[in-house]
Amino acid sequence: MTTGTTGALTTTELTERECWNRLAEHGIGRIAMVAGGEPVILPIGYAVVPGGLLLRTRPGSKLFSILLDGRVAFEIDDHDDEHGWSVLVVGRAEEVLPRDHVGIPPAAPFAGDDARALVMITPIRVTGRELRLA
Amino acid sequence: MTTGTTGALTTTELTERECWNRLAEHGIGRIAMVAGGEPVILPIGYAVVPGGLLLRTRPGSKLFSILLDGRVAFEIDDHDDEHGWSVLVVGRAEEVLPRDHVGIPPAAPFAGDDARALVMITPIRVTGRELRLA
Repeated sequence: MTTGTTGALTTTELTERECWNRLAEHGIGRIAMVAGGEPVILPIGYAVVPGGLLLRTRPGSKLFSILLDGRVAFEIDDHDDEHGWSVLVVGRAEEVLPRDHVGIPPAAPFAGDDARALVMITPIRVTGRELRLA
Repeated sequence: MTTGTTGALTTTELTERECWNRLAEHGIGRIAMVAGGEPVILPIGYAVVPGGLLLRTRPGSKLFSILLDGRVAFEIDDHDDEHGWSVLVVGRAEEVLPRDHVGIPPAAPFAGDDARALVMITPIRVTGRELRLA
């Protein structure tokens, strides 16, 4: 990370295609939900599949029950010293059956072999931006 | 990332001290808020200061106005193939004056030199967990 003064910041909106390209290149993101009136952010593995993002979680877990309770935000990002980007997917989450989806999310550090429930995030809005220091 | 089956997952809760240690070692996290009824996640630079986390943002920006609208969640995480961790800070956000804080957050990829507003997150709850595949 740089320290001291930073100079001007250039913000570029990413196209939706570019957002999907970056989503397809990554496998771990973060999901935000509201649980008991409080916001929560959790890292989670995912896969891009036709129609949206597919997540794996344990059936009956706290995450699973929260996920199915309305709109969620899902985010990926990366940065170096002078450059950063993020993609935000706002969507609705619902449980889906394995037989309905060929593209099961790959195993990830945040999913064990008991993460058998599949949750689909159907995007309502996909946005992204890239920040660069001049 | 690993693919295929993953084996059992071991989850360890981090102590609050360990959470603060990891917060102090990092400088970019993500903040979740509710904006117009929709959840939003944005990456943001931060610094650990006495009393909480200090963020920089542009005065009058959308982020700034949303931040001051109630509870926020702030998260950092990292992972490799077999191991991942995350720290979650739930707190209240409020604007603070530079003279009240010695520890101004360092410049970050997500803050330009017009990010002059300081926002303090006073923690209500700090939790963290570490996941490891057996």
